[in-house]
Amino acid sequence: MSHNKIANKLQNLQSSAIRELLKHSKMDGVISLGGGIPDPNLFDREGLQIAMDNVLTHGWKDAFQYGLSEGSPELRGAICQLMKERAISCDIDDVVVTSGSQQSLDILARALINPGDVVVVERPTYLAALQVLQLAEANLMSVGTDGQGMIVDELEALLKTTSVKAVYIVPTFGNPGGVTLTEQRRQQLVALSQRYDFVIIEDDPYGEINFTDKTFTPLISWAAEMGVSDNVIYTSTFSKILAPGARVGWLVVPEWLKRQVVNLKQATDLHTSSLSQSLTYHYLNSGRLADQIALIRQAYKQKCLVLSQHLQNELGDHLTFHQPMGGMFLWAKFKYEMNTTHWLQKTLSNGVVYVPGEFFYCNEPDRSTLRMSYVSTTEENLKEAVMRLKTALN
Amino acid sequence: MSHNKIANKLQNLQSSAIRELLKHSKMDGVISLGGGIPDPNLFDREGLQIAMDNVLTHGWKDAFQYGLSEGSPELRGAICQLMKERAISCDIDDVVVTSGSQQSLDILARALINPGDVVVVERPTYLAALQVLQLAEANLMSVGTDGQGMIVDELEALLKTTSVKAVYIVPTFGNPGGVTLTEQRRQQLVALSQRYDFVIIEDDPYGEINFTDKTFTPLISWAAEMGVSDNVIYTSTFSKILAPGARVGWLVVPEWLKRQVVNLKQATDLHTSSLSQSLTYHYLNSGRLADQIALIRQAYKQKCLVLSQHLQNELGDHLTFHQPMGGMFLWAKFKYEMNTTHWLQKTLSNGVVYVPGEFFYCNEPDRSTLRMSYVSTTEENLKEAVMRLKTALN
Repeated sequence: MSHNKIANKLQNLQSSAIRELLKHSKMDGVISLGGGIPDPNLFDREGLQIAMDNVLTHGWKDAFQYGLSEGSPELRGAICQLMKERAISCDIDDVVVTSGSQQSLDILARALINPGDVVVVERPTYLAALQVLQLAEANLMSVGTDGQGMIVDELEALLKTTSVKAVYIVPTFGNPGGVTLTEQRRQQLVALSQRYDFVIIEDDPYGEINFTDKTFTPLISWAAEMGVSDNVIYTSTFSKILAPGARVGWLVVPEWLKRQVVNLKQATDLHTSSLSQSLTYHYLNSGRLADQIALIRQAYKQKCLVLSQHLQNELGDHLTFHQPMGGMFLWAKFKYEMNTTHWLQKTLSNGVVYVPGEFFYCNEPDRSTLRMSYVSTTEENLKEAVMRLKTALN
Repeated sequence: MSHNKIANKLQNLQSSAIRELLKHSKMDGVISLGGGIPDPNLFDREGLQIAMDNVLTHGWKDAFQYGLSEGSPELRGAICQLMKERAISCDIDDVVVTSGSQQSLDILARALINPGDVVVVERPTYLAALQVLQLAEANLMSVGTDGQGMIVDELEALLKTTSVKAVYIVPTFGNPGGVTLTEQRRQQLVALSQRYDFVIIEDDPYGEINFTDKTFTPLISWAAEMGVSDNVIYTSTFSKILAPGARVGWLVVPEWLKRQVVNLKQATDLHTSSLSQSLTYHYLNSGRLADQIALIRQAYKQKCLVLSQHLQNELGDHLTFHQPMGGMFLWAKFKYEMNTTHWLQKTLSNGVVYVPGEFFYCNEPDRSTLRMSYVSTTEENLKEAVMRLKTALN
């Protein structure tokens, strides 16, 4: 049987290094700073149990039956409420429930991108977004980031010479970079989308995991204020704040894209698990989410602090990094030439893994970088991980 | 904002007639013979409740956490057992859990089909399969069916002149035709796949809903016996025998395709809801599925009998049809020229809807056909539906 070119392309994306990493990170005694996997000890077991009791008592027929491709009206209504708390104004009809952010991105890539269309991402950017964009045969270009997020001036320079279809960005507590786009740059980016007629895909999985008192205005809210609502598509998920296993995320889509997105959702899997949607609705309805988010924020903030302090103390001569203001990741860079993909072999034999930075680039990879997740490891192990990294430098 | 050609294509597939149908079929007083929607009164509420109790007691952390893209090992093991009962021999590593048959087909289309590749389907065939194959830009061709299923001789004639990449077929209790491929034709089809080097996608959502004492050998089992296992990909689902809302289906894939399918599953939605997978595993583990299937079989058989008898008695002069041996659909054809899409407006105003046959063709539609589902309507209403159809002929 002959293999298909697209499938082969996807195969190439899954580098053997990443496979090795995933395999070894589950070995006994290895401390993983690898995946962005929520700490299961923080799951709100009681709240989820109560929500499930409600599903099975009041809505079991709906929970086990086919539903609408765009998602259940109850859940979409509850999501609109949640959006309000994030300063995003939307209507039930603007919301499409998906089976998590990954599916949101895949559907958007299929809806928007023709082979060869230019899509701009941050450098570095989210690994799995690269995957679906490459699968859609986008022509990927990247723009640098600094401590204030994407360098929008660099994007503007690119726009002067290149016709861009879409910009993909994680503006708040980014993955992998951990940085947050400033308000000034947010406005600048949205203004550019109007001037140069491109779509912004605003991916916001981590916005609620805020370690500060500051709030950040979503790009979609700036777009509404600036009268260019058609230019921003917003996606978020319950994976990081409730339970990734339920696979529930959502999109807020402008009118012109709605029909295509719903049709693609239908072609993809008819609709997201009614059971997961019902559970999520009843959980939101219980009013427990705010406390749950507060709990996660506090715990991840503390873990982030432990990791960053120990990195500074023990490896400050070797590594430089921006202190995350939220999210799940710390992105570090060696102060000297280093190949973190090669180094992984050594740290692995010392019992610690991370994700080498090069996988987060669509081009010009900076191989002296690495991404460390602090969320699913105990504080004790975070300290131990830093010591193991240090030993691996000798 | 400019629309994308693929998305537009998809939009065209969703004809306004189908939209109308779906809208009106939920109106008060309208009897729907439209969708293939299981009767929720047959859901095993007690069994599902017990299974969920087990999930929340014994495996709640796993049920709410990220999982493997190929599906949970426990569920894949249980699926292998189920496959054994269907005379299919497979290993855990051959099974990929999907979010239902629709996703199985979408993933296969993306994994296998390059734009322009010829894919052969039955005439008529499953509407949503046409959708994903068109989305993958397949060159769709069709082969006729009769009371014994696909006319494989017709396929063979086509193969002599045309290079075919894949054949998509629902061999047992087909949708929409309700017919079942004979054993002789099954062997003939599998033998052709070897001689002409194409892949068979065997879609088996209804095989367990058997109204007879006969068993039908899956194509994948014939392929194993004939030494051509690489040529058949099998897909099935728990939607029709357990609960569609959970969105759990599976693929049995040959070795050469495994990596691509798992990578695509990952790119599509990371993995199927862990909660739904856990629930399904615990349900299978409870041993209740066999009784549940027996219950569904009996109920649907009875409903099928009521519909077919009344159709014969009341509309036998107008319609001809094959008596289904299983499944969810009765496919009928007018004995004279008729446009069932136009007629739908009239039946709708008489309070009954069906799906016009033309939507199940990729070409050469026979507009005198219609598909009637008998599963989600009471016996009383099935009788009433036939009377309303009769009135609409006047």
